[in-house]
Amino acid sequence: MKFGVIIFPSKKLQDLANSYRKRYDPHYALIPPHITLKYAFEATEDEALQFAEKLRHIAGNSHPFLLKTSKISSFSPVNNVIYFKVEPTEELTYLHAEINKEFNQQNTEYAFVPHITIGQHLSNVEHSDVYGSLRMTNVDHEETVDRFHLLYQLENGSWTVYETFRLGRE
Amino acid sequence: MKFGVIIFPSKKLQDLANSYRKRYDPHYALIPPHITLKYAFEATEDEALQFAEKLRHIAGNSHPFLLKTSKISSFSPVNNVIYFKVEPTEELTYLHAEINKEFNQQNTEYAFVPHITIGQHLSNVEHSDVYGSLRMTNVDHEETVDRFHLLYQLENGSWTVYETFRLGRE
Repeated sequence: MKFGVIIFPSKKLQDLANSYRKRYDPHYALIPPHITLKYAFEATEDEALQFAEKLRHIAGNSHPFLLKTSKISSFSPVNNVIYFKVEPTEELTYLHAEINKEFNQQNTEYAFVPHITIGQHLSNVEHSDVYGSLRMTNVDHEETVDRFHLLYQLENGSWTVYETFRLGRE
Repeated sequence: MKFGVIIFPSKKLQDLANSYRKRYDPHYALIPPHITLKYAFEATEDEALQFAEKLRHIAGNSHPFLLKTSKISSFSPVNNVIYFKVEPTEELTYLHAEINKEFNQQNTEYAFVPHITIGQHLSNVEHSDVYGSLRMTNVDHEETVDRFHLLYQLENGSWTVYETFRLGRE
């Protein structure tokens, strides 16, 4: 079974992201807009139960923090992924590191660049068109993050929330 | 903002429900398969925060319970909704009643018939065809429910989880 750990930003930011995702992200219907803390990984249900226990502990030792977005950026040429850039604050980076420590054999080959994907699986031409028209867009926004979620993937590719973890509250 | 309270059944049951929803339920992409505990209702974010506090309390005073499905049924002729019938056990009925007490001005005109929708918005002819072919299907299944979720709706109609409440654990 596949699991992942994410933050859902506020409804306001999700609605804004969806206005782009609708056109540019084939995962639009599979999961709401999110910031990935831990990429999809395989685990048994028992492993996930233990992992949830650890996430509860990590959440309890963390605190709500400010999330800031400023602009639209892209992972091109590595990946044709367009996203809202999220400031890599100390708290967010710490949370990411703590969570990934727990299953450190997987998916740790990339540096953590916190982001909210708004477009992906674009051809080079599409990417260039879309990014060209969006790159100057201002997405100055800030909000408080006070929770994150553990999800699992269904057979159709969509994601269901298993559990919410409230920062500083578990 | 619209909120709702639901139970997500196990991945196994969600995958089974989705195999039908894909064809017969236009809400397929908006929310994973679920049992509704409280229908969509309007609330401000402040009201929802208070409601979450009450849900935490209700969850804390409840216990994990057995969920049983047995067959496929329909709300026709009231509604062309086809669903997995969920046994209205004492625990489930109690949980539903406790949650609905809190916002009792809305949506209480129906008796609680716990179910997992697998088809809706069908024409009379479609409903009759689909239900005719599914009504004898055996969905004998049981599993333990140990949590429920508060969700909110985005502008595109899809639902995001706000918080998980674990039965007997908050």
